[in-house]
Amino acid sequence: MSLLIIGSVAFDAIETPFGKTDKIVGGAATYASLSASYFCDDVKIVGVVGDDFHKEDIQEFTNHGIDVDGLQIKKGEKSFFWSGKYHNDMNSRDTLITELNVLGTFDPIIPENYQDCEFLLLGNLAPQVQQTTIGRLTKRPKLIVLDTMNFWMDIALTDLLETLKLVDVLTINDEEARQLSGEYSLVKASKKILDMGPKYLIIKKGEHGALLFHEDKVFSTPALPLAEVFDPTGAGDTFAGGFIGYLAKVGTVNFNNMKNAIIFGSAMASFCVEKFGTEKIKNLSQEDIAARVKQFVELSSFTI
Amino acid sequence: MSLLIIGSVAFDAIETPFGKTDKIVGGAATYASLSASYFCDDVKIVGVVGDDFHKEDIQEFTNHGIDVDGLQIKKGEKSFFWSGKYHNDMNSRDTLITELNVLGTFDPIIPENYQDCEFLLLGNLAPQVQQTTIGRLTKRPKLIVLDTMNFWMDIALTDLLETLKLVDVLTINDEEARQLSGEYSLVKASKKILDMGPKYLIIKKGEHGALLFHEDKVFSTPALPLAEVFDPTGAGDTFAGGFIGYLAKVGTVNFNNMKNAIIFGSAMASFCVEKFGTEKIKNLSQEDIAARVKQFVELSSFTI
Repeated sequence: MSLLIIGSVAFDAIETPFGKTDKIVGGAATYASLSASYFCDDVKIVGVVGDDFHKEDIQEFTNHGIDVDGLQIKKGEKSFFWSGKYHNDMNSRDTLITELNVLGTFDPIIPENYQDCEFLLLGNLAPQVQQTTIGRLTKRPKLIVLDTMNFWMDIALTDLLETLKLVDVLTINDEEARQLSGEYSLVKASKKILDMGPKYLIIKKGEHGALLFHEDKVFSTPALPLAEVFDPTGAGDTFAGGFIGYLAKVGTVNFNNMKNAIIFGSAMASFCVEKFGTEKIKNLSQEDIAARVKQFVELSSFTI
Repeated sequence: MSLLIIGSVAFDAIETPFGKTDKIVGGAATYASLSASYFCDDVKIVGVVGDDFHKEDIQEFTNHGIDVDGLQIKKGEKSFFWSGKYHNDMNSRDTLITELNVLGTFDPIIPENYQDCEFLLLGNLAPQVQQTTIGRLTKRPKLIVLDTMNFWMDIALTDLLETLKLVDVLTINDEEARQLSGEYSLVKASKKILDMGPKYLIIKKGEHGALLFHEDKVFSTPALPLAEVFDPTGAGDTFAGGFIGYLAKVGTVNFNNMKNAIIFGSAMASFCVEKFGTEKIKNLSQEDIAARVKQFVELSSFTI
């Protein structure tokens, strides 16, 4: 089924204890759409770049079968740029530079041929832009997943709360769940957040895996223990892309399929962190993914 | 099969954001033996208390079928006393008082009728005392599990490394695994630690569950997400007791049984934190435990 992904398409400059990059292609929609493309053959993106974005960069999307009709290219303007430096533990980072550029005035225009999309991923962006996107779709998608971050809770909480009423699934990390709910316990936090609108809540815990909450049910999946986390940038977006890409592939939304979608999303995220930027997730085979998912099964299965 | 548990039997005074206790019974051997008693009907403890330890306190062990022949009572002396205060996040705590008392000169005497024990849990104690215990057993138990903490890595590392060569399973938390190995990545840490002697390594991650490493295999189990963690004291010991108690019950040591033992240990630990001290784990039924284990199965099972 068709999947629409909206989010930033950007340049990142990343520094980790393992090295540093020049400007490389990044952004939520980039990671998420590449990740989703391994599951769903009808992925479309909406985003905006400047004319500093190269043809080869756009070619990378089309090589993965991703529809870029909704990717606006602003002449004479520059793409969103983010630069950050990870600490030694790789769990925390400092933002060095944020240049909004074209993203500062981003108006999400939905091409006519995108209107039939059945799955929608609202990647991390201003909640107002996420809400506008929903409003511009003539038919509500079957499933709307929203990803956000603490930044928007700090500066646009009212907009975010309004937008949350319109979505089915929210993905945030554990600290963000605590901030949004005002509850330390993730069980209590999940109850409050599920009352805000989403029917499903996914709490991403990085190296500790993820939790899925729905009604009174909860599912927990570990992260794959890795010898080396090379660059965590984009892992959350890659997770979200794999998650919704898998659901768009199977077509039916229920708790069991959500659980599997979390496993596939986690598997994709585990690849993402193994190299800088999108380097690893650009070049995967279906066999790579199947082998990684098998590792997740072995990692967490037991028979009592 | 018979299970010998050695460790502290003590008084604790605990303060959490939910309240505070007077002196209540605690100690590694207390939590571990109570926990193990739900699985194994032949649990024996070796420990030491002062004559401030009441008959009713000892009765609690025998009520659970625990053999206390190896519990020395030192006339005119006082039991080990620890007092601590948990921070609001319940993940960190300050030690307010540590009075070693009888534990300062503890000589682990093994009663003759303990000599045939097939499973041995060396609860958190000075590594030298743990090593002496192994040396005093005429026949090596089928499985030796050692629990320790950062304190001993700080002040008795050489002794600890010597003792690690003699055991089958080591249980420590993630920070301790990093300290012991000098590696941040738990995968790398596990390889180094498995080279130190133990064939199995269990890394306890509190609210994030536990990891089991053995040869090239790894198993991950979540912790049960709880609405409230009331008092984390003794959770690690309760985990260790449930873990080895389950193995002593099934009798056969292999990776699959270890995985199940971790689930049972985690289930017991999830009860422990729900009330102060041993209050909850003193009063469980087999039905309570079966229902909790079922929650773990539901929490982490998926079918791809």
